[in-house]
Amino acid sequence: MIHFNYIDWFGFSAALLTTIAFLPQLYKTWKTKSADDVSLIMLILFITGLVCWIIYGLKINSIPIVIANVITFIFNFSILILKITYSENKKIK
Amino acid sequence: MIHFNYIDWFGFSAALLTTIAFLPQLYKTWKTKSADDVSLIMLILFITGLVCWIIYGLKINSIPIVIANVITFIFNFSILILKITYSENKKIK
Repeated sequence: MIHFNYIDWFGFSAALLTTIAFLPQLYKTWKTKSADDVSLIMLILFITGLVCWIIYGLKINSIPIVIANVITFIFNFSILILKITYSENKKIK
Repeated sequence: MIHFNYIDWFGFSAALLTTIAFLPQLYKTWKTKSADDVSLIMLILFITGLVCWIIYGLKINSIPIVIANVITFIFNFSILILKITYSENKKIK
């Protein structure tokens, strides 16, 4: 059986928090139908970085890196799609 | 001399991109004086996660984890301060 020490739990908490953090952002964007204040460049750079993390994780066979970054990618890619959609809708109006 | 393979470069690119991504968000927030669309819960969860990453990095003696997360912490903490400040200013007006 694997035993985790308190240092490992800081790692797990860190990975969990920096992953689920984007869920309230996704919810807020969907609820308010607005993401004007969210930087498009940030989303593009961050998503590109997440893709690099996923490739890196796959190459070094690190399941935690892959899982955490795939989830974060899904949240951020969804925020990006919503931002572009709402921005287009505003232009049409 | 240390030699890096192409897998390492994916790791470096990943760390760099997911760190500097928050600089355009910080600039945009400062420029527009608004961060209403940026989720406060996201910032709090993310910053708490970054603090856990920094502690974890220090405990396992990983300089890259510490440096990347300290920089990301500085950017996100600044965005949080600006968001609270601009939100308070709007209330006064």
